[in-house]
Amino acid sequence: MIKFNIAAIADPTLRQQLAERIDAKTKPQGSLGQLESVALQLGLIQRSSSPRIVAPHLFVFAADHGVAAEGVSAYAQEVTWQMVMNYLARGAAVNVFANAAGLTLKVVDAGVNHAFDPHPDLLVRKIAAGTRNLAREAAMSMAQAEEAIATGATLMRELAGKRSNLIAFGEMGIGNTTAASALMARLTGLPLDACVGRGTGLDDSGLARKRAVIEAALALHADARTPLAALAALGGFEIAMICGAMLAAAQARMAILVDGFIVGSALLVARALAPHVLDYCIFAHASNEEGHAAMLRHFNAKPLLDLGLRLGEGTGAALAYPLVHAAAAFLESMASFSQAGVAGRHG
Amino acid sequence: MIKFNIAAIADPTLRQQLAERIDAKTKPQGSLGQLESVALQLGLIQRSSSPRIVAPHLFVFAADHGVAAEGVSAYAQEVTWQMVMNYLARGAAVNVFANAAGLTLKVVDAGVNHAFDPHPDLLVRKIAAGTRNLAREAAMSMAQAEEAIATGATLMRELAGKRSNLIAFGEMGIGNTTAASALMARLTGLPLDACVGRGTGLDDSGLARKRAVIEAALALHADARTPLAALAALGGFEIAMICGAMLAAAQARMAILVDGFIVGSALLVARALAPHVLDYCIFAHASNEEGHAAMLRHFNAKPLLDLGLRLGEGTGAALAYPLVHAAAAFLESMASFSQAGVAGRHG
Repeated sequence: MIKFNIAAIADPTLRQQLAERIDAKTKPQGSLGQLESVALQLGLIQRSSSPRIVAPHLFVFAADHGVAAEGVSAYAQEVTWQMVMNYLARGAAVNVFANAAGLTLKVVDAGVNHAFDPHPDLLVRKIAAGTRNLAREAAMSMAQAEEAIATGATLMRELAGKRSNLIAFGEMGIGNTTAASALMARLTGLPLDACVGRGTGLDDSGLARKRAVIEAALALHADARTPLAALAALGGFEIAMICGAMLAAAQARMAILVDGFIVGSALLVARALAPHVLDYCIFAHASNEEGHAAMLRHFNAKPLLDLGLRLGEGTGAALAYPLVHAAAAFLESMASFSQAGVAGRHG
Repeated sequence: MIKFNIAAIADPTLRQQLAERIDAKTKPQGSLGQLESVALQLGLIQRSSSPRIVAPHLFVFAADHGVAAEGVSAYAQEVTWQMVMNYLARGAAVNVFANAAGLTLKVVDAGVNHAFDPHPDLLVRKIAAGTRNLAREAAMSMAQAEEAIATGATLMRELAGKRSNLIAFGEMGIGNTTAASALMARLTGLPLDACVGRGTGLDDSGLARKRAVIEAALALHADARTPLAALAALGGFEIAMICGAMLAAAQARMAILVDGFIVGSALLVARALAPHVLDYCIFAHASNEEGHAAMLRHFNAKPLLDLGLRLGEGTGAALAYPLVHAAAAFLESMASFSQAGVAGRHG
């Protein structure tokens, strides 16, 4: 069995040092709002009053989903591998945004139903050529779920070994909002209607079909109650691999930039396995996928952006990254009142 | 009298071209949310289906306010010039964020009570060494208001002459939330309580004093009803100069990135003089200053960020700029479905 030992980031002495350093900067106290919280969190994660972001990466995990056969997406399953090719050709939104933000982008084939030629940006870590159809049987075996978690964890240990200390996660997989919604319903206990949305753009009848598929799947897998059993029955290879990657990233004290709904579903599993993984998470954005607002409330998270995005791929994380960078940069580079010779407030 | 002729950006044919180009990108339609609106707006402003941002700048306008003598700020008036020195030494938050975002930062002395040594980043355009105390007399003469507007306009014409097509505005001036609140109350007709906040951090008694000062000033200047008369009686030199700069920037078809509450008060005046200036404005953020939410509603604006900032300086604009850049970049660089060989949605 997989075991992750993740420490809380709480450290009252360091927190006090960081707060004093933030308050000494030439600005009214608290006037940088949420960026001050992020700066403090980065310091606690890195156990440093001078946190710096080193070699930030964005990993897009891609996989196919047997449940796509149920007509739960507005797009055909082939779009998964076609979009992977688009990432490798640097033509997708996430390429544009990661490039602008200075994030190194890698694509992980966690289980796409396609044989890719080797490419320097592609890491082939295929568990299988797609999951089985969760509407009929478990999406994957417990052994596959554990293998995916271990594979994601290994990727992050390798990355941490190269001194990277910030990882953003993205995903691609036609059908994966169905898996994510099912996982969310099972792991949060929220009503299914709060967990299901239109994904890439289902119409009303498509949404009704998707909801019915998930409802039946939850009944079929009624016994899959532990986090790992739920992941195996209802999840996807990219979700499982992200879950393992999150756990290992937190263990390596990397900051984790959480994208939207699918990546959030991986975090639901990770948190169930090791609650303090949340301490390492910065929530990038509130997406337009209907279940995401409830998911964010469940995490008690206040995301950095709310732009009505619903694309996935890690686009929200890439767009939010400059704000995380700015948080570290103000702590690093701003002058203090005494350094700048600026008078403080009255009294 | 100053006259600005600002055209609407509406162009149904170009709008249709832009919408088709956006929808052909490899993403579900509408899935980039607010970034799609910004991309479309940039295209309409530039009259191009391939808008590009060239030489983006952030100008911080600084000035002193006679009303600071009424104890309406938590900081002493000297902090205005001390912070200008901090900008020139690159030690302030706006320096850090503009630098990270790739914005060229210039500081404009619109009327600071201090004689600065020459500096390559400083443009001395002083109208006077601070306004008069608006609680006792008009903050400036009509001639000064017109001079400030004309000066701001000239700065933007020079910048447009260097092919810059995006300008972000920031400001510094101890006491300027008082001027901005008074202007807002006068020009919007909203109740004073909706327009007044704590600025850089007043306590309850300070807030009550500030409110009383503004209420008395509005009564004293009850006749200052036209936009220019209100600006002269209640405004500030940085506010007037930003107003003129906005009008000339729009006339030169530059995109305008609007920071927070003070810059918004300049836009209230500019819009009263030429309503279509709003077409050129991208709203950077919702600030934590109490009146800003009502001001944004008044503009019917949905800002890009909501991070609880209340610092001014243009920090919100600098932090939002990467999103504007990302909007132009996806339109420019993303592959279309046909280019990438990705299948579109069913049906």
